[in-house]
Amino acid sequence: MKAARLNEVGSDFVIEDIPTPEPGPGEVLIRIGGSGACHSDLHVKSGEIPGVAFPHTLGHENAGWIESFGPGAEGNGFEVGDAVVVFGGWGCGHCRFCLGGKEQLCNTFLWGGMGPEGGYAEYMVVPSVRHLLRADGLDPVEAAALTDAALTPYSAVKKALPHLVPGTSAVLIGAGGLGQYGVQFLKLLSPAKVIVVDTDEKKRQTARELGADVTVDPRDADAAEQIRTAAGQDGVAAVLDFVGIDTTMALGAGAVDRLGIFVLVGLAGGSFPFSFFRFAAEAVMMTSNWGTRNELEEVLALARSGRLVSAIERHPLSEINEVFEHLATGQIPGRAVLVPGAPSSNG
Amino acid sequence: MKAARLNEVGSDFVIEDIPTPEPGPGEVLIRIGGSGACHSDLHVKSGEIPGVAFPHTLGHENAGWIESFGPGAEGNGFEVGDAVVVFGGWGCGHCRFCLGGKEQLCNTFLWGGMGPEGGYAEYMVVPSVRHLLRADGLDPVEAAALTDAALTPYSAVKKALPHLVPGTSAVLIGAGGLGQYGVQFLKLLSPAKVIVVDTDEKKRQTARELGADVTVDPRDADAAEQIRTAAGQDGVAAVLDFVGIDTTMALGAGAVDRLGIFVLVGLAGGSFPFSFFRFAAEAVMMTSNWGTRNELEEVLALARSGRLVSAIERHPLSEINEVFEHLATGQIPGRAVLVPGAPSSNG
Amino acid sequence: MKAARLNEVGSDFVIEDIPTPEPGPGEVLIRIGGSGACHSDLHVKSGEIPGVAFPHTLGHENAGWIESFGPGAEGNGFEVGDAVVVFGGWGCGHCRFCLGGKEQLCNTFLWGGMGPEGGYAEYMVVPSVRHLLRADGLDPVEAAALTDAALTPYSAVKKALPHLVPGTSAVLIGAGGLGQYGVQFLKLLSPAKVIVVDTDEKKRQTARELGADVTVDPRDADAAEQIRTAAGQDGVAAVLDFVGIDTTMALGAGAVDRLGIFVLVGLAGGSFPFSFFRFAAEAVMMTSNWGTRNELEEVLALARSGRLVSAIERHPLSEINEVFEHLATGQIPGRAVLVPGAPSSNG
Amino acid sequence: MKAARLNEVGSDFVIEDIPTPEPGPGEVLIRIGGSGACHSDLHVKSGEIPGVAFPHTLGHENAGWIESFGPGAEGNGFEVGDAVVVFGGWGCGHCRFCLGGKEQLCNTFLWGGMGPEGGYAEYMVVPSVRHLLRADGLDPVEAAALTDAALTPYSAVKKALPHLVPGTSAVLIGAGGLGQYGVQFLKLLSPAKVIVVDTDEKKRQTARELGADVTVDPRDADAAEQIRTAAGQDGVAAVLDFVGIDTTMALGAGAVDRLGIFVLVGLAGGSFPFSFFRFAAEAVMMTSNWGTRNELEEVLALARSGRLVSAIERHPLSEINEVFEHLATGQIPGRAVLVPGAPSSNG
Repeated sequence: MKAARLNEVGSDFVIEDIPTPEPGPGEVLIRIGGSGACHSDLHVKSGEIPGVAFPHTLGHENAGWIESFGPGAEGNGFEVGDAVVVFGGWGCGHCRFCLGGKEQLCNTFLWGGMGPEGGYAEYMVVPSVRHLLRADGLDPVEAAALTDAALTPYSAVKKALPHLVPGTSAVLIGAGGLGQYGVQFLKLLSPAKVIVVDTDEKKRQTARELGADVTVDPRDADAAEQIRTAAGQDGVAAVLDFVGIDTTMALGAGAVDRLGIFVLVGLAGGSFPFSFFRFAAEAVMMTSNWGTRNELEEVLALARSGRLVSAIERHPLSEINEVFEHLATGQIPGRAVLVPGAPSSNG
Repeated sequence: MKAARLNEVGSDFVIEDIPTPEPGPGEVLIRIGGSGACHSDLHVKSGEIPGVAFPHTLGHENAGWIESFGPGAEGNGFEVGDAVVVFGGWGCGHCRFCLGGKEQLCNTFLWGGMGPEGGYAEYMVVPSVRHLLRADGLDPVEAAALTDAALTPYSAVKKALPHLVPGTSAVLIGAGGLGQYGVQFLKLLSPAKVIVVDTDEKKRQTARELGADVTVDPRDADAAEQIRTAAGQDGVAAVLDFVGIDTTMALGAGAVDRLGIFVLVGLAGGSFPFSFFRFAAEAVMMTSNWGTRNELEEVLALARSGRLVSAIERHPLSEINEVFEHLATGQIPGRAVLVPGAPSSNG
Repeated sequence: MKAARLNEVGSDFVIEDIPTPEPGPGEVLIRIGGSGACHSDLHVKSGEIPGVAFPHTLGHENAGWIESFGPGAEGNGFEVGDAVVVFGGWGCGHCRFCLGGKEQLCNTFLWGGMGPEGGYAEYMVVPSVRHLLRADGLDPVEAAALTDAALTPYSAVKKALPHLVPGTSAVLIGAGGLGQYGVQFLKLLSPAKVIVVDTDEKKRQTARELGADVTVDPRDADAAEQIRTAAGQDGVAAVLDFVGIDTTMALGAGAVDRLGIFVLVGLAGGSFPFSFFRFAAEAVMMTSNWGTRNELEEVLALARSGRLVSAIERHPLSEINEVFEHLATGQIPGRAVLVPGAPSSNG
Repeated sequence: MKAARLNEVGSDFVIEDIPTPEPGPGEVLIRIGGSGACHSDLHVKSGEIPGVAFPHTLGHENAGWIESFGPGAEGNGFEVGDAVVVFGGWGCGHCRFCLGGKEQLCNTFLWGGMGPEGGYAEYMVVPSVRHLLRADGLDPVEAAALTDAALTPYSAVKKALPHLVPGTSAVLIGAGGLGQYGVQFLKLLSPAKVIVVDTDEKKRQTARELGADVTVDPRDADAAEQIRTAAGQDGVAAVLDFVGIDTTMALGAGAVDRLGIFVLVGLAGGSFPFSFFRFAAEAVMMTSNWGTRNELEEVLALARSGRLVSAIERHPLSEINEVFEHLATGQIPGRAVLVPGAPSSNG
């Protein structure tokens, strides 16, 4: 099969012919319908995220069709040809994190496409039917993007929901690929006023189109004051930071009211000096790390109901290097999905 | 002042001139802007709800303006003339229920208008500023109805929210005055499909206009099946019963899926034989009883945002007997509010 | 291998030689160290619990040693010979209940020993390593009883814990095999006063030895008053009913205070007429159905810490019919565990 | 009456005769039985905590007897002479924080003894009966210390409880006056292994006597490793930091496992650089700020049950300057309570 191989840190992807894998006991072979190009793969490519053995096939946002079952995997209600969405946060499958419904937090870090081989290829092996959800009417290309670009903000928003009673406000920082889904989840799932912070006017514009009530440019000298004014007396009950640099964390942490929550999603490496008097009393500071299998089912349900807007661009696998260059230089406004066998986007 | 007095069980209201009350220490005198006519007053009037001493001024849904402060009540940020909404679920004010934020559940049952004198009058005394919320732009007549007809379903819906993840359905039984607010809260606060059950096609029509996705006539032989079909495979995660007769409770309890919730709001006196195999595993059955002061603040915030539709009809206090006759015979589609000093609705 | 076979409804068990099963892909063969004799098997034996195909090997409380792995099951951190405890609440493994950590509530009811063949035999097949927990120092015979007789009350107590703040009381009805663990969990995990209700003075005595603060004979005319007096002004915040007949449910439901919880565990088939005024305001009524895999891990941790008292009696598999006769006639004060290969208890 | 007055920042206390205050409407005059000497008063004395007007009577840990009622305060079930404990976290009484049960977090910061006059005097005024709890058998001197020295760690431990399932460990840093109560609450309310960290061997010894399972000297080079070893494979689910300097926060934050919680209580002014990879995934970092009125009721219930050990030393009000000198120099192992009218501790 064709696969986009990363042969060493810092290299480009190379499209190679490698043997199509055979699914072992309990495993399932998936024919890839779409595999999303995610920012975090740039960090793997550059060697910043350690622990990935090369050569490797990346790609952790996947959907497609069941091609074949390994021994013992059939007979679980799935059949060859079924359109499926792949939950990627694989763990050991038998510890208390995995069996408590939070497999993506398992210490045995086995995220598909970041250790096990991923979906920038014609086929990939999924280790268990428990990682498969029915596409059930969803286009595999759009569904692929939902498995991380939508699931990650969804999980972050769910952590904020108990705080977001009517009258309160939510601040979302960073209206890129993930943040755009985040705005929609806040509007669909909460009655809060949504205040979006981004340096890019085009992204602020997109956020407003997706329902943001107020947008703020964080470079404005009075950005914190703009947030306070927009929030009014009931204050900011939740901040979701999809950027995660020192300045966004300081702006966001400073905005949270007592008993509120600050959720860090962005991996930009920033930090905030948490102390007794620099963060609101009894407010929560925490990270949100991908999402659970059941949260992905909930995201798919929202998508099926037609209430989610996805800005997807499709590219054949052969364009993978261009796609990642665009990603690195901020030229992809929504989400790019690699589609094996798709016609070239150039014509 | 003029007050609509109920002099004994079963009698009509009589408009009398009685002395305007003086607010004692810590108390506040309110000039009534509107006082909602609530079904539960019919039960007081008929003697079914015991413990109310006659003669009595009913009226527990109140809003208006601060007329004067008793000793020690001023200086709390309120001023004479401020437009205020009255939270009615008064308790002792110093037990763990009151101080845990659930004053309406206090054993010292002192609900304003059902023990202490209420708002079917030109003035009423509120025992503490803690029961006053700022109207802040809301019309006192509409705001009055919000204090029970909206607050009660809001509190019931809040109990259901953690269950209502995307893909699930909520069943609401009884689309009358309270249920109509309930439909709106479900649509505003959750992503669930909303299935409304009512015997009256006009109310089902209203429910659909307010956002109900599906409506069901419970007299249909296949009503339960219609609910199951509408809910689909993710099932019914929550049922809110605003009627509360045996048949609605049986229909609703039978619809709830595992880990779901059935909330009983209606006071019609029905019961359901709870047992291990007749109710879904580990689902919750509970009542919802009025709402908390903070939930009322949340309801007011939603109303201020313009997202709540209220079907209010205004009547002068002098029409109180006609209003209660209409209430008893089901001729008030939304909520009737008594407005001291309003012109007659006939002229 | 030897297995105690139930060949038809109503028959006795027959010890037969049947082929030792072969574990399929992903499956694990367990050599049984102990298999608890549970009351619910009496209901299967009598045909009251439908859906079990005969001939059948019952036994859903199991612990022992890994005998062999089916294809693909090895390499998960377990090795042949490891002492393991079997979680029995098997489901489909890939629905939202299973993957949300509540596999015992799965609609695809596959509880080991109540559908799939169970542990009243020398060996049994477990369909996945996810159902195995390390015994890690625990005696398999004691550990077997923990998988249901302790796990079931543990899960019920966990539902009650958020209600059991200092000053409150918990009422536990039925101090038999499960209830005796329940008393211990209440004392170990909560600061509540524990009030135990049982008709049998010997069981009340045992409950007191295990930490019960007060015991009540429900046949006393003033039993409800005794509970009220013992609970004092903070009231009963939780009731756990391990019997589940009409009278225990009425006694328990009547005792719960506002915002409390009534958890039904006993399968005796009783019911309670839930209605607005017959059950405390906003208290919860629900069932508790076995327990989760992670809750079993927590039970094992408590047992390892030496803080759980288990009243276990051991019997060779050949005595199974006597054991179930004793069980049916209430002659087993704690838990009986069948031990393949154990010497006869008569000799 | 006699009162210990602080006339300006940095001065000593001066025992003066000032007029006994008169309770206004709704207020209650309390004869002080005991008033605890709290570390935070050192910060007020030194001017570090701004906003206190001088001259001032400090003292925010109070218990005693009702001396008289202001107008409208009587008739709430309390009578002159009743022994009462004073909840000190006073707020405005009518915002959503106050009426949601978290009055100590109110923006209108009116903590009794840190703004309003406190209890280092023969009498003090409490603004509402809602701040009074019945002593009900408790000695006012011990009860005084419970209102902060016990309430504060209790509230912190309650935040940790949902994380502390059997098998997990809790780390408590700082076994001084508050920490000693914290150890007891952890042992009374959770099944967790309790690991106490303190630089002082005497305090570690006290902690072990109060139930700590393991103690660690943070100056040991392998302190973090000692914690990890003690916690074992289920890890540290909760850390409570009663010190709050940079090094304790780093040690504690580094110990928390995924989905755990780090609660900062100590006011020493330290901070921790919160970032995506320096703190466990989806663990919570938050402060705990005094406690709620209902939590105080729970603390009193525990004390009444005889399960709390308090190390109290009693001093006449006239010794207040010596007491604060001892406090400043770490010579008070438990809690010192000032008792107006007590005989001198020297005689």
